[in-house]
Amino acid sequence: MEKRRLYMDYAATTPVKPEVLEAMMPYYTTYFGNASSFHQFGREAKEGLDKGRAQVASLINADPREVYFTNGGSESDNWALEGTAFARRNKGNHIITSKIEHHAILHTCEYLEKVHGFEVTYLDVDADGKVDLEQLKRVISDNTILVSVMFANNEIGTIQPIKEITEIAHAHGALMHTDGVQACGNIPVDVKELGVDLMSMSGHKIYGPKGIGALYIKKGVKIHNFMHGGAQERKKRAGTENVPAIVGYGKAAEMAKNNMENHVRELTRLRDKLMYGLQERIPHTRINGHKTDRLPGTANVSFQFIEGEGILLLLDQAGIAGSSGSACTSGSLDPSHVLMALGLPHELAHGSLRLVVGDFTTEEDIDYVLETLPPIIARLRELSPLYQTYIKEHPEENK
Amino acid sequence: MEKRRLYMDYAATTPVKPEVLEAMMPYYTTYFGNASSFHQFGREAKEGLDKGRAQVASLINADPREVYFTNGGSESDNWALEGTAFARRNKGNHIITSKIEHHAILHTCEYLEKVHGFEVTYLDVDADGKVDLEQLKRVISDNTILVSVMFANNEIGTIQPIKEITEIAHAHGALMHTDGVQACGNIPVDVKELGVDLMSMSGHKIYGPKGIGALYIKKGVKIHNFMHGGAQERKKRAGTENVPAIVGYGKAAEMAKNNMENHVRELTRLRDKLMYGLQERIPHTRINGHKTDRLPGTANVSFQFIEGEGILLLLDQAGIAGSSGSACTSGSLDPSHVLMALGLPHELAHGSLRLVVGDFTTEEDIDYVLETLPPIIARLRELSPLYQTYIKEHPEENK
Ligand SMILES: Cc1ncc(COP(=O)(O)O)c(C=O)c1O
Ligand SMILES: Cc1ncc(COP(=O)(O)O)c(C=O)c1O
Repeated sequence: MEKRRLYMDYAATTPVKPEVLEAMMPYYTTYFGNASSFHQFGREAKEGLDKGRAQVASLINADPREVYFTNGGSESDNWALEGTAFARRNKGNHIITSKIEHHAILHTCEYLEKVHGFEVTYLDVDADGKVDLEQLKRVISDNTILVSVMFANNEIGTIQPIKEITEIAHAHGALMHTDGVQACGNIPVDVKELGVDLMSMSGHKIYGPKGIGALYIKKGVKIHNFMHGGAQERKKRAGTENVPAIVGYGKAAEMAKNNMENHVRELTRLRDKLMYGLQERIPHTRINGHKTDRLPGTANVSFQFIEGEGILLLLDQAGIAGSSGSACTSGSLDPSHVLMALGLPHELAHGSLRLVVGDFTTEEDIDYVLETLPPIIARLRELSPLYQTYIKEHPEENK
Repeated sequence: MEKRRLYMDYAATTPVKPEVLEAMMPYYTTYFGNASSFHQFGREAKEGLDKGRAQVASLINADPREVYFTNGGSESDNWALEGTAFARRNKGNHIITSKIEHHAILHTCEYLEKVHGFEVTYLDVDADGKVDLEQLKRVISDNTILVSVMFANNEIGTIQPIKEITEIAHAHGALMHTDGVQACGNIPVDVKELGVDLMSMSGHKIYGPKGIGALYIKKGVKIHNFMHGGAQERKKRAGTENVPAIVGYGKAAEMAKNNMENHVRELTRLRDKLMYGLQERIPHTRINGHKTDRLPGTANVSFQFIEGEGILLLLDQAGIAGSSGSACTSGSLDPSHVLMALGLPHELAHGSLRLVVGDFTTEEDIDYVLETLPPIIARLRELSPLYQTYIKEHPEENK
């Protein structure tokens, strides 16, 4: 029998959809020109580039001239923060973000603090992962040049009130950036309605290729360049345009837009079946993240008394790919900074499991996980001294 | 009859070789995992990543742990410069580069000057495009933290004496970076022999995909990060690893290494036939760049009395894709900064044409260009007031 390959890590990355790959293919070998070149090969590439830009812009209701392609979400985040910080230094040196941002935000903030002398305030979040708006109002000042709060969290899926945060930022003359990497393509996003100045996006989270992303820069907003060099992207982002990836990203954005309603409904249904199904079958389970304001595909649960690493190992043996948090910090033994920020005790933060369903997830996949996971948790708890102590104190639970 | 598609712009970008695309394909849809993920999909991706890194390292005789993947040559250049500048600020604030660098170097230097207060010296070059070593020795001082001189020029192909420049840099305690984007994969490059500390590379110039490159960082050399975020690339370069592109880049590097001798010999032969053939057939033609120390595929010629744009237009109509300089500044009407640095008068700098042959160029392609170009030049000269004046003064040439 072939080994099961059950992927439930759609927040880490997604497979490229066949239609996306098909759109990309001719741009590798036939329309392979440099989109900035002045000849037929260049024009062919430029056509793909323009179409991709229009498709990505349409996903977020932006003007194509407000969409600048980057290498991915991380570059967009670096650009938004550094580009704003250095361009607005004469106005102030204070940046506000949250404690549960992706490391592409947090580590760039640290760099701006340590190497370039900026001051950063990291907002708290409540037990569901919502940022503290009262705290934001207290700490923002005329010295604040930028507020950066993520749209939807990559570990727990909680969605923030971006429009409200933007209004507070603008009331103090600060620019507003949101890391929309997990949101754009997964839930409806409309930059005009939100009013944000800057938004980061990425291709490989929405069935597009890796190595491509975008920064939305609202018309009229001026920030410094991050990638210096050639005159690409209307002189704002240097580097030979990655046309095959842009064509693929465009196709993925178009598909996401056309399929949005169905995507949200179907993933929410599967995710709820999974999340509440696990809670029902496994005692001492905590659901992490906001109950309703959350990404459709994201389940994050903590199982008391045990470690996430053990769960992942046994799940992997059963052919199920999950994660304990974000992929880019795996290998680290620290508990997730997101779960810690929720106020979870170390123990629960350590015993967390993220399962993210996607467009290729089936009903049978959910059933298989609901069947496979409870005995894994039971087995790990058998081995857990914490659990053994607990059971001695609560013998009635040892059925 | 189908329109001719004759590509002679291999310095702008290259098509992806079929073997390269074939190696990449499974990583889009089957081994699509995040290489940092802790599960089977992650491990599969990690294997591709490791193999790609070993292949790229082998091309330049580096240790795989000295190769850090980036988004392309521009990012590598930005990283090398900014990463060194900010890390060594306490040692000095002086950077030395040359006047004929790619804009990814020049514009990053400008940014470091204008926004961050560094001082940059731009070395002159001689009529063949070789940097002035005596000038380098005069301007370098203990305040110099970095010397960055490109390995091979993208417009004229001239190759610099990188080993000698490195020795001068090191004698003054400066780090040495070279932009090897056009060199690596086109001519033999051995970082151990050269002694450089940092080298930029790119995939799409050597039949690999766009959107992938690398920065070689010699073991022990410490520079700041450029892309902040997750712990990828041994905590030195954040962002989800672009595994399909890395697999393709690795394959392209491997093929380039195995085919090096033949590639250099064959391209040099075709390029010389083209370059000297044009000079023979067309009067008042100047060959730009060094006669022998030059990239095998690169021809760059100036035709007196006419404009490059007109040549490109008529060549394009004849199905031949050439360029007047670098792709990423096309659209600009300024003459090439490289040709100006050679000391060419405006007029010759404006009438230049770059034709770059590659692994798919055939003997017939060369013959077709040698046949097609002379009448195009003749026609444009007919329309040129400059030429008409010249001919009136030299009636003997009007045969
Ligand atoms: C919220 C968030 N921001 C930024 C990133 C970084 O995106 P990328 O991996 O495309 O650089 C990710 C994913 O890794 C993410 O989930
Ligand atoms: C010498 C040189 N450096 C840097 C670059 C930039 O590389 P990329 O287009 O991969 O960003 C190029 C090509 O455009 C180049 O020729």
